[in-house]
Amino acid sequence: MKERLASLREAIDGTLDRLLAGDPLSPPRILEAARYAVLGGGKRLRPTLLVLSGEALGGRREDLLPAAGAVEMIHAFSLVHDDLPALDDDALRRGRPTVHVRFDEATAILAGDALLNLAFETLARWPEGNGWSRRKLEAIRILGAAVGMSGMIGGQVLDLEFEGKDASTEDLERIHRLKTGALITACCVAGGLLAGGGRAEIEALDGYGRALGLAFQITDDILDVEGTAGQIGKSPGKDAKDAKATFPSLYGIEESRRLSARSTAAAVEALAPLGPRGDLLAEVARSVATRRN
Amino acid sequence: MKERLASLREAIDGTLDRLLAGDPLSPPRILEAARYAVLGGGKRLRPTLLVLSGEALGGRREDLLPAAGAVEMIHAFSLVHDDLPALDDDALRRGRPTVHVRFDEATAILAGDALLNLAFETLARWPEGNGWSRRKLEAIRILGAAVGMSGMIGGQVLDLEFEGKDASTEDLERIHRLKTGALITACCVAGGLLAGGGRAEIEALDGYGRALGLAFQITDDILDVEGTAGQIGKSPGKDAKDAKATFPSLYGIEESRRLSARSTAAAVEALAPLGPRGDLLAEVARSVATRRN
Repeated sequence: MKERLASLREAIDGTLDRLLAGDPLSPPRILEAARYAVLGGGKRLRPTLLVLSGEALGGRREDLLPAAGAVEMIHAFSLVHDDLPALDDDALRRGRPTVHVRFDEATAILAGDALLNLAFETLARWPEGNGWSRRKLEAIRILGAAVGMSGMIGGQVLDLEFEGKDASTEDLERIHRLKTGALITACCVAGGLLAGGGRAEIEALDGYGRALGLAFQITDDILDVEGTAGQIGKSPGKDAKDAKATFPSLYGIEESRRLSARSTAAAVEALAPLGPRGDLLAEVARSVATRRN
Repeated sequence: MKERLASLREAIDGTLDRLLAGDPLSPPRILEAARYAVLGGGKRLRPTLLVLSGEALGGRREDLLPAAGAVEMIHAFSLVHDDLPALDDDALRRGRPTVHVRFDEATAILAGDALLNLAFETLARWPEGNGWSRRKLEAIRILGAAVGMSGMIGGQVLDLEFEGKDASTEDLERIHRLKTGALITACCVAGGLLAGGGRAEIEALDGYGRALGLAFQITDDILDVEGTAGQIGKSPGKDAKDAKATFPSLYGIEESRRLSARSTAAAVEALAPLGPRGDLLAEVARSVATRRN
């Protein structure tokens, strides 16, 4: 299991390296910043979910990898912009200076823009051949909806609006469903759509993605309280400093752990219609809940 | 001619209003900022070019309008981000406070992101029906390439890099070809592709777009020297203050006027293979060169 995930990770990193090869017209500085943002580590959770979801429904890895690269670029775009001084003002990410610290603010803004744009270009381009057209467009629509004002970007707006305010548990769950959950869920669904999955299979992936996204976010909040910078690669205690609504601040650490475990179990359960084809996805769900970074 | 362009403009504005209707999940503030950025006037040059290019090749207006809305959203995204303090730091745009002044920086960054994302979602969604899939993907690829690191975003990077430095005429033309020309050209080509144009027709539109984009940029530079804020809706003299490379600073005003007239003539000439179907596009080229705002 571990080796299969490690070899997938290598394939994803290789794909990202190729997608970000640049061309003679790209100014070197922005290409360098985009590569720095994407190629500097990270868990590769979203592309892993996309590939494993597609493979669970019979898709071929080589057909799924470009879209996997695209969702990691979308994720990187969101991190680069979230870290900007006007937003979360973070200086450390994945154990290194953030893009605006290492380069400058203008370059960080434009590199983020370029990554989002390249993600859609990639989704439209591969796999080549007219037989893929309908599926590629479905993937673009699902991911676009997950990223936009009613998805990740909307969640970031809410997150900023609630800084320093008392958020209810409903507010908190809404923020996270949009900010983190929407893209994670869309990765699972997009992988399934690219593989030509049927309705029941796509619904199973959708349910899995929703539950996994929640478990992931709760664990993230717990790590922000308990982790060290060396473990989590970013500044710990940041949420409390920014007076962000988090699961530990609303529920306490112990109850947050229980919620995370319950969501993980729900994610695994949602995979039942896929039978043993969902085993690797179940393994990923379990590793998300027990991760230390 | 004038009435036909005015009625097209109305149709474009109506399309943008509908595309930016939002949904119950969108936080009101980001929707408001995105609408403010897009619906507050502007020449609508890019969507006009997309629709007229498509119509010249037999496309139907209703099939072209969603993509027209998408390219205007791409243009608005680029203005919102270019105006940010870390980039051009502009306080006035289309005669009103820029988005980060009217709202705040975080909202401006996220609203720009949302507009770019919504543009691609729109391109993938309409016109509906599997018969459109191949053409929609072609339009996404062409526009994605025009926006990215080797297009508009790359041009913005170069523009910032050359601030205060001596740019050669080759540098200047490269900056503008990427920063303004690439998207304008892609609008013409995308309209033609959506209409199912043949190779020779698409090449005519490509040549037209390139020449028009250059004429447009030269006129823009001249207006920055000669216009008033009331005329041009943004702060005049900004280029000189930022020590930007411009056509007037390199060639002088008179020679810049001659270059603009020559490019306009080249744009009109490129339309020759389309015969009278290119008349409206030719009219747009002439109005671009003589515009006062």
